[in-house]
Amino acid sequence: MAVSSARGMRDFLPRDKEHREGVLNQITSVYQRHGFESIETPALEDAATLHSGLGGDNEKLSFHVLKRGLTLPDLQEAAMPEELSDLGLRFDLTVPLARFYASNHGALPPVFRSFHTGPVWRAERPQKGRYRQFVQADIDTLGEASTLAEVEIVLATADVLDRLGVEGWRFRINDRRLLTELLGAAGIAESDHPVAMIVVDKLDKIGPAGVLEELDQRLPPGWSRSVIEGMVNSPSVAFDAGRLGTLMGDSSVSHSVAEELMAWVSQVAALLAPGVVVFDPTLVRGMGYYTSSIFEISHPDLGSSLGGGGRYDAMISAFLGRDVPAVGMSLGFERLLDVVPESPHEHLDRVALVYEADSPGEHLLAIKMHLVSTGHQVRIVPGSRNMRAVYERLAADGFSRVGDVTSETTNAGDITWRDID
Amino acid sequence: MAVSSARGMRDFLPRDKEHREGVLNQITSVYQRHGFESIETPALEDAATLHSGLGGDNEKLSFHVLKRGLTLPDLQEAAMPEELSDLGLRFDLTVPLARFYASNHGALPPVFRSFHTGPVWRAERPQKGRYRQFVQADIDTLGEASTLAEVEIVLATADVLDRLGVEGWRFRINDRRLLTELLGAAGIAESDHPVAMIVVDKLDKIGPAGVLEELDQRLPPGWSRSVIEGMVNSPSVAFDAGRLGTLMGDSSVSHSVAEELMAWVSQVAALLAPGVVVFDPTLVRGMGYYTSSIFEISHPDLGSSLGGGGRYDAMISAFLGRDVPAVGMSLGFERLLDVVPESPHEHLDRVALVYEADSPGEHLLAIKMHLVSTGHQVRIVPGSRNMRAVYERLAADGFSRVGDVTSETTNAGDITWRDID
Repeated sequence: MAVSSARGMRDFLPRDKEHREGVLNQITSVYQRHGFESIETPALEDAATLHSGLGGDNEKLSFHVLKRGLTLPDLQEAAMPEELSDLGLRFDLTVPLARFYASNHGALPPVFRSFHTGPVWRAERPQKGRYRQFVQADIDTLGEASTLAEVEIVLATADVLDRLGVEGWRFRINDRRLLTELLGAAGIAESDHPVAMIVVDKLDKIGPAGVLEELDQRLPPGWSRSVIEGMVNSPSVAFDAGRLGTLMGDSSVSHSVAEELMAWVSQVAALLAPGVVVFDPTLVRGMGYYTSSIFEISHPDLGSSLGGGGRYDAMISAFLGRDVPAVGMSLGFERLLDVVPESPHEHLDRVALVYEADSPGEHLLAIKMHLVSTGHQVRIVPGSRNMRAVYERLAADGFSRVGDVTSETTNAGDITWRDID
Repeated sequence: MAVSSARGMRDFLPRDKEHREGVLNQITSVYQRHGFESIETPALEDAATLHSGLGGDNEKLSFHVLKRGLTLPDLQEAAMPEELSDLGLRFDLTVPLARFYASNHGALPPVFRSFHTGPVWRAERPQKGRYRQFVQADIDTLGEASTLAEVEIVLATADVLDRLGVEGWRFRINDRRLLTELLGAAGIAESDHPVAMIVVDKLDKIGPAGVLEELDQRLPPGWSRSVIEGMVNSPSVAFDAGRLGTLMGDSSVSHSVAEELMAWVSQVAALLAPGVVVFDPTLVRGMGYYTSSIFEISHPDLGSSLGGGGRYDAMISAFLGRDVPAVGMSLGFERLLDVVPESPHEHLDRVALVYEADSPGEHLLAIKMHLVSTGHQVRIVPGSRNMRAVYERLAADGFSRVGDVTSETTNAGDITWRDID
């Protein structure tokens, strides 16, 4: 009989679970104060919802659920395995949110700020640090056409990171329209933009020379090296109007887009520490649904981002039939856990009651109940010959004090406490 | 394009989600104080784990996940649809806990008290109040052979119910061994016990006369009506030694089992309000894995139980290869929500900032950040011609005050607050 969790899936033991819960509660609480409201959607969605084309490459990683009541002829007549499935596990929280909004928009305020967290599932090849079930935490503002939506989302997320004690993070910000116009200014045909974006997106991995070389290989000749060189050689510059203007001017990119970007980012920058918000003309973000602003959080200790998002004004129409302005941000919860310092837990006082294994004493439980009701977390432990092991276990589990309860102990006041650690 | 959640699955909007989270946090917090530690297991388990025979009838309600990379020949060669599946969604938390313990027991304390909560999935025919995804909240004590395990679990659960403000609940308690011996004393052959238990379990629905009639139909003749009459006509009696003794004596049932039951239940009863713990000789509990104590929480407003559990000392051996004493309790979280009074939320102070839609004012976000950092929950709302609707929405969402932010408002101190409700 198998005694391990399914391939690529994890169990969480109490200390790990406590850390995860503590971080998630902090994220939830900060986002709620910033006006984002918690919702929940089911883990399973109709296959048609999940495979609507909005999920990009992640759709291919979906776990399919077998229809109930299938017969052998059903199996033999199926033209492909997916025909045997009518439901799937969600692979992200964005597609379910769009479906949720289409289902429930009548009961939501005109500008709806959503906080949506929970596990998602992807049938990826398991490898170190990559799991088939993991938690995402998304915020999205639906119904707000102005860049107030971007500003609130970036400020709230910065507040989350600060309160978690994460250090060294930076928000890299770009605009899909700028990116498109820069590629246009470089003489790259619109039909080649998707390929060019995929190549530029590899900058972190292959460097500026690698990007230029791969563009040489994959694009027809005739594009301007100098524009692309200007782009890939100065990623992540501080957001100052001069530098941005130079980049824009050089490539004759639309000034109105640049001005809009400058305007909302300076609002954000004015309220955050200097240098944490940077302009990165090479930021692409993989998903096809972004329409303008895009952003990503980088951290010096991590090879991949801590989270990212952008504006996707056209996505909800796939479910609702009309466009709804939308900006979202997805935190990579699992990666975040790696950079949140192990904070001194805001524990309850943890105390252990050691009782005689053969005769627990008639007051043991009454004493436990009393300590619980006065705000302690209480574990009862039978005495044993090897108390050293018992104490080590208790210390590892965050217990600070231990007391003996014998058959003579009638109330909590009789206990002499000893510190452990 | 479908715009509803999958059949039998629910979305939760902010007010509902808030109620669910509030109740779950309270449950978690009380159980933790009583020494139960949070763990997490994945939603998907190997099919062999889920279909090990321990899940009873629920195994039939499992959602099966398609293997990845199936080909058409795989479909044609399959002898049954389940062969195409290697994973399934958990239908309860008990089977995953047994698997978790077998996987991780080396890293757990000798007596491990687990708190385990999360969604489970069952492919039931959707109907009012019955959903295909719902939350369970289980506590289990593993490794404790003595009835201290039962005592702690019942006391902790009683504390949860009291702190949630649930009124009128009762713990009905029985012991599988007593039940078996009562049926034996009634002259029912052991091979007929499963059928007899199924019939007795219907007492709530068909009444004492119905039970006797159905036993007449389904059992071979020769069993003693009077023993069964004594049993079904006096369910849920107070736990007093006299009544219990009479019932036992009349049917010559093992006194040692009765004494053990009396002993632990009187420990519990002494610490709880009079009458909330009752002996019910007709309590069966459906699952096959219970070995002695069984219990169930009843509530006058509910047709089904608020939760239940018992001792299942032989279950973990299915995964670990050796018996581990185990007692568990599963709370029916969804039913619990229906009987928890809508408590005055322990909200943060919720305030709304109304801004001029065309010119939000340069200080709006700084003012919001200030209010957030001083412990408020803040929503910004554009002014509109129909402020009445705006206020109604805010009041419904729990906001208590609203203030205007104009282009002249430079800090939070300038705001004149108005109460809303």
